[in-house]
Amino acid sequence: MASGGLDPSAKPPRSGVINSAAYCNGVRVADVPLPDLGDAWRYSDRFIWVGLYEPSEQVLSHIQEAFGLHDLAIEDAHQAHQRPKLEIYDDSMFVVLRTARLADGGEHRIEFGETHVFLGPRYFISVRHGSLKSHVGLRARCEAAPSHLAEGEGFVLHSLMDFIVDQYFPVLDALHAELDELETEIFSGKFVRTVTARLYHVRRDLLALKQAVTPLLEVSSRLSRINTPLIPQDTRPYFQDVHDHVVRIADLIEGLQQLSHIALEANLALITVSQNDDTKRLAAWAAILAVPTMIAGLYGMNFKFMPETEWAYGYPLAVGFMLVTCGGLYRWFRKVGWL
Amino acid sequence: MASGGLDPSAKPPRSGVINSAAYCNGVRVADVPLPDLGDAWRYSDRFIWVGLYEPSEQVLSHIQEAFGLHDLAIEDAHQAHQRPKLEIYDDSMFVVLRTARLADGGEHRIEFGETHVFLGPRYFISVRHGSLKSHVGLRARCEAAPSHLAEGEGFVLHSLMDFIVDQYFPVLDALHAELDELETEIFSGKFVRTVTARLYHVRRDLLALKQAVTPLLEVSSRLSRINTPLIPQDTRPYFQDVHDHVVRIADLIEGLQQLSHIALEANLALITVSQNDDTKRLAAWAAILAVPTMIAGLYGMNFKFMPETEWAYGYPLAVGFMLVTCGGLYRWFRKVGWL
Amino acid sequence: MASGGLDPSAKPPRSGVINSAAYCNGVRVADVPLPDLGDAWRYSDRFIWVGLYEPSEQVLSHIQEAFGLHDLAIEDAHQAHQRPKLEIYDDSMFVVLRTARLADGGEHRIEFGETHVFLGPRYFISVRHGSLKSHVGLRARCEAAPSHLAEGEGFVLHSLMDFIVDQYFPVLDALHAELDELETEIFSGKFVRTVTARLYHVRRDLLALKQAVTPLLEVSSRLSRINTPLIPQDTRPYFQDVHDHVVRIADLIEGLQQLSHIALEANLALITVSQNDDTKRLAAWAAILAVPTMIAGLYGMNFKFMPETEWAYGYPLAVGFMLVTCGGLYRWFRKVGWL
Amino acid sequence: MASGGLDPSAKPPRSGVINSAAYCNGVRVADVPLPDLGDAWRYSDRFIWVGLYEPSEQVLSHIQEAFGLHDLAIEDAHQAHQRPKLEIYDDSMFVVLRTARLADGGEHRIEFGETHVFLGPRYFISVRHGSLKSHVGLRARCEAAPSHLAEGEGFVLHSLMDFIVDQYFPVLDALHAELDELETEIFSGKFVRTVTARLYHVRRDLLALKQAVTPLLEVSSRLSRINTPLIPQDTRPYFQDVHDHVVRIADLIEGLQQLSHIALEANLALITVSQNDDTKRLAAWAAILAVPTMIAGLYGMNFKFMPETEWAYGYPLAVGFMLVTCGGLYRWFRKVGWL
Amino acid sequence: MASGGLDPSAKPPRSGVINSAAYCNGVRVADVPLPDLGDAWRYSDRFIWVGLYEPSEQVLSHIQEAFGLHDLAIEDAHQAHQRPKLEIYDDSMFVVLRTARLADGGEHRIEFGETHVFLGPRYFISVRHGSLKSHVGLRARCEAAPSHLAEGEGFVLHSLMDFIVDQYFPVLDALHAELDELETEIFSGKFVRTVTARLYHVRRDLLALKQAVTPLLEVSSRLSRINTPLIPQDTRPYFQDVHDHVVRIADLIEGLQQLSHIALEANLALITVSQNDDTKRLAAWAAILAVPTMIAGLYGMNFKFMPETEWAYGYPLAVGFMLVTCGGLYRWFRKVGWL
Repeated sequence: MASGGLDPSAKPPRSGVINSAAYCNGVRVADVPLPDLGDAWRYSDRFIWVGLYEPSEQVLSHIQEAFGLHDLAIEDAHQAHQRPKLEIYDDSMFVVLRTARLADGGEHRIEFGETHVFLGPRYFISVRHGSLKSHVGLRARCEAAPSHLAEGEGFVLHSLMDFIVDQYFPVLDALHAELDELETEIFSGKFVRTVTARLYHVRRDLLALKQAVTPLLEVSSRLSRINTPLIPQDTRPYFQDVHDHVVRIADLIEGLQQLSHIALEANLALITVSQNDDTKRLAAWAAILAVPTMIAGLYGMNFKFMPETEWAYGYPLAVGFMLVTCGGLYRWFRKVGWL
Repeated sequence: MASGGLDPSAKPPRSGVINSAAYCNGVRVADVPLPDLGDAWRYSDRFIWVGLYEPSEQVLSHIQEAFGLHDLAIEDAHQAHQRPKLEIYDDSMFVVLRTARLADGGEHRIEFGETHVFLGPRYFISVRHGSLKSHVGLRARCEAAPSHLAEGEGFVLHSLMDFIVDQYFPVLDALHAELDELETEIFSGKFVRTVTARLYHVRRDLLALKQAVTPLLEVSSRLSRINTPLIPQDTRPYFQDVHDHVVRIADLIEGLQQLSHIALEANLALITVSQNDDTKRLAAWAAILAVPTMIAGLYGMNFKFMPETEWAYGYPLAVGFMLVTCGGLYRWFRKVGWL
Repeated sequence: MASGGLDPSAKPPRSGVINSAAYCNGVRVADVPLPDLGDAWRYSDRFIWVGLYEPSEQVLSHIQEAFGLHDLAIEDAHQAHQRPKLEIYDDSMFVVLRTARLADGGEHRIEFGETHVFLGPRYFISVRHGSLKSHVGLRARCEAAPSHLAEGEGFVLHSLMDFIVDQYFPVLDALHAELDELETEIFSGKFVRTVTARLYHVRRDLLALKQAVTPLLEVSSRLSRINTPLIPQDTRPYFQDVHDHVVRIADLIEGLQQLSHIALEANLALITVSQNDDTKRLAAWAAILAVPTMIAGLYGMNFKFMPETEWAYGYPLAVGFMLVTCGGLYRWFRKVGWL
Repeated sequence: MASGGLDPSAKPPRSGVINSAAYCNGVRVADVPLPDLGDAWRYSDRFIWVGLYEPSEQVLSHIQEAFGLHDLAIEDAHQAHQRPKLEIYDDSMFVVLRTARLADGGEHRIEFGETHVFLGPRYFISVRHGSLKSHVGLRARCEAAPSHLAEGEGFVLHSLMDFIVDQYFPVLDALHAELDELETEIFSGKFVRTVTARLYHVRRDLLALKQAVTPLLEVSSRLSRINTPLIPQDTRPYFQDVHDHVVRIADLIEGLQQLSHIALEANLALITVSQNDDTKRLAAWAAILAVPTMIAGLYGMNFKFMPETEWAYGYPLAVGFMLVTCGGLYRWFRKVGWL
Repeated sequence: MASGGLDPSAKPPRSGVINSAAYCNGVRVADVPLPDLGDAWRYSDRFIWVGLYEPSEQVLSHIQEAFGLHDLAIEDAHQAHQRPKLEIYDDSMFVVLRTARLADGGEHRIEFGETHVFLGPRYFISVRHGSLKSHVGLRARCEAAPSHLAEGEGFVLHSLMDFIVDQYFPVLDALHAELDELETEIFSGKFVRTVTARLYHVRRDLLALKQAVTPLLEVSSRLSRINTPLIPQDTRPYFQDVHDHVVRIADLIEGLQQLSHIALEANLALITVSQNDDTKRLAAWAAILAVPTMIAGLYGMNFKFMPETEWAYGYPLAVGFMLVTCGGLYRWFRKVGWL
């Protein structure tokens, strides 16, 4: 699951803070530096949205102090490699999501990442690990719809999840396309080593995706049924829609896993059939070559009295006999399908 | 799952609207053009039945406006590749079904499609994706039973589901027949490459069918238990009957999957047995040919003093000895079953 | 699952009606022709028991009219290939059972069939499909115990299920015996083609049996817990007993499936081991024969000056050297276990 | 599952009755012959404990009459091959247990058996099938603790179950030891036929054990939760303890099954690797031998003008060339790992 | 599962008692010898923490007497090889945990152990089996946080579980690293015997880990939901956190199991592909060598009239012809990919 690893290159600037702003009625009213977050949050008409990328412990303890977050959640948020989950505290929530997107550059490499979310009344803090690009464009898109954004943290959570979940589809499409290509290669009869390796990598990627998505099923299902003021009643159908997408993704992964499995079995069966055919062909040619060799050996014997060796046409007759025998064998082997 | 793809050829005429009519007491009273749907629906004694095929966004927004449908459902209906599901809104339902039928033309190719249904008081809107032919004949059949049709949207939903579900049976029969043929070929001892390929395609089709049917189980089960005025109490046994058919289909798919799996295992075992037999046969013939070659080599040696070479009958004796040895080996190999 | 097919030969006489009688206090009082069934049923002290075999639509509609049966049940009863199930209507029940028995004639061929039952107050109608012999003797046995028969339809249903379920045991015993035989053959080291084929057929039969029995589990379980006047409270332990038998059958099938699977794996492993041994043996003999051939070739060279060819004992020495080499190789190969 | 069969040898004496005694305050006060059981049971301070071995129908009907047992339970008790289960009647219970112990004699052969128990107020009747030794020593052990025995039938049931369940552990230890031995043999590189056969027998035994233990899980779980005067409240922790042991046994079986499966897969992989190595070795030696044979053939040609054959050192040069070529090939094959 | 065995070397001193102390307000106030435990426990402001290592029966009966522990729990604590579980008695708990840590010394050997815990008001008794090092440092760490330690037995249980559970992660990291290494070796094309053996050992270790962790899931889940004064309400999130870690471990094990399985399948497929390639190469070289041998045999025949043998350039022509043929074959085999 090396492909599940997080890419450590390309650290972001500004002590892990990507963006930190206050919104009023869905409109960005101020950029808020880290030390002022606590004060800014006190305005009851302001909604604070902070975006972090692999923050240091210091940054996290600033955040914890400002919003009064739970120790255990902060500890989790500092480490990557969490499992998707939903923790519900008295008046806040902690959500862990795993992201997956096709890496830039053309080959089908998957870039996994994690996004942790702290959610409470009038604040939304996202902490990204691994893939920096996994929510590029999300904030801009939300700010473009101020009427929705004015609904606050529940709406932003839905937008984020929708955004992250929809990134899985192109990944699955790429794996599906790869499997279709492999299928063609398998049935074209070339059992090149690379087919097996590529099939292995598809299956490994599917495993990693499955491990990312399976716990997400429970998270999205709970969010569409949960009873909390953080998620207003009328956004439930939207979380239900996200859940539907997650179910569809889990279904697709399952289907691709089974497809890759039967493709592997077909591949193995064809290799064995092919080996069988090659053995037969080898045997047939060995037989065809062995017969004239044997006849030649016969007339190579040094007996004094071998009448044929005295004949004027002994040699061409012998060669002719060899040719006829080989030809006969060749035709017979063709007939029984060994050649 | 390429066979799960939707065939994009053969677009229907009239901006995606196949049929759009108003019924009164089960009798078609008027064809209703798209812009008049809203007005037509206001007559409390009219039932509106609209059939669409891969509609454009414009057509769908017309429909949405006329009947006040939910945003999310409209969004889903615009895209194919949904998973069978049942969404229940306040006074309407959205149902996604997957269709499967044998493609015309003789070979066992399966044509998958999707049907989305919007159902509310006195309206029934079906949206087909992929297979255009998947409900040919349904409307005619319903119109032929006006007393039933007068019961409205619940009855039409049942008719549609019954129609779609029953199309799965010939598909499964065809796959069953294919497996029976493959079984015969496997045990006939010809491990031709095509057997493996055909077995693979049967298994791939079964996978695709399973993915279409498994979520349908939940849809049909919920419809037979649901408590809504859209599905009158007395049509429940009919939805239970549809559910029974879906269960039977899921069972058949499961059975065929297991059957194809044991057929594959038998195939692999027989290929290995056959390879073993061929190796033995090859070894036996190699031995039979190697012995006279060796004897001939012996008498081909150029020693001055080889008494046998001086004998008048040395040559025929040597050849005779070769024949006897080969004959003996041949009989021995037959006896131990290598030939 | 061809063996799951119904044997169409041997149609019964009398338009599908095998037997149709009225009972009073457990004693047969009259044979009732089809048209009189409705009238006969009106006597409140009479119990009607009708046995049909693949009835025509006409016969079924007679029956439907006489006892007021549900449309959907009648439709099901007309077709074979139903799944075991239990439908409960207001005051009647519809039960589908699958039968399996060893076909007459000695080879282990399984004869599958179906029995559908309509059960209501004071009537019991059984409809057989496929195997005609699957309830031979049942009626005679019930009539021999009039005190029990007087309890009516619940008792007859139990007798029928007990009868049908007990027929599975000899089938499983036969499959078990076949597996034991196959096990002996597998470990005797003869990987004959027929072992693989027989193993395949055992597994296919087990699959078909499993598909017949799995839904039966739910039917028998519900019957032992159901609350209906049709099944008197005190016959529940008897239905519980039937359920126990079905559980035992399901267990046995599961066990045989797993046993046949590990037998197959052992078979494959042994074939591979055997192939390995044969390859080694082949290689050893090839080496033993190649050495004298090479030496003979050596002395067959036409060099002017080859001292050995001039020696008086050159020939016997060469042959002796060949024999010694071959003998040495032979002993060495025996030692390392290749021969 | 032949090893699941019951050994019919060694019938006990006295018409199937092993022991039949009355106890008062935990002390044996009288041996009670079969016909007097009913009378003895009437004393309200007496507890009756009867031990039977494969009893005849007559013995069982005596017992049934004396204690008023249920028909169905008596029918079950007469036949072996029941599934572990717990039937609860109004004021009595019927328990079926399967026993497994290592057969005497040293090889790891498992002796399966069955014990059926009738339990009611102040009586405990055990019926053994198959393995006679499966409860040797139990009665003596119970009689040695009269204070416990005075608690009556619930205590005896616990003692019996504890006794039977603990016999599974040495069986599993023996199978575990066998698997450890097989593991060593597999990785020692000798793919002897017997490894496959022994692995098969371990797996078959594990299957038979699993089938015996899986239903026992439910029996022991229900006994630790059941609400009946037959099982006093304060013995529940003891039944919970038995249940814990059964869970542990089921866990061990599961673990051994998976271990034997990965051992089989490793075995198959190693056989294939080994076959590959042997093929390479065979090919290398064939090449080494083929080269001098070809050279010798070259100088065996009868051309008039072959300068080398005229040279004084032609022969030793040719032989030398052959040796050099073979040596070179040999070293090259060693280098690439084919030899 | 030999690696699941407990290492019996290195017994600790002092009759199995590692540490036994009384705490007041989280500060160690006295070391308490075994016989004084009962008295020390009577002080209502003292918390007793005893650490044992494979104690003798005497030590355990001392403990039992002092704190009034349940017979069954003491019996369990005396034996290793328990299954992780949680027993709840009236006012005490018995917890069984399995530990796993990387053995010292560098190779990836896993040291399994067991820790049993008796927990009651103001006492905490841990009994270690197998791995002595599995809680080195725990007591020191707890004593360093007296404010927490003052919370008593619930806190110590959490600390112990947290400590034990976190030891699983480095074990899994080591197995993951081993699998990554194996993956590289598999695709490097060397199917050395050791790859199969190492893969087998990884899978065996994963099996043993799974058996240790699966029942732990239920234990940690119950502890985070249980309602008892022993576990104060506000420590529940901490037990929930432990449970999350256990879920993550179970997930990782599952993932590694599936990864090792697809690696094995890829390995087998590559071995088969490789075998196929070697067979083809062997066949190609056999053909290349067979042709000149046959031609040489031809001109080794002793016919009187073979014109070519009389030609001055017959010999070089023949050799040239051989070279050309071999060269042609060589190029052809390269082209079709057999060489």
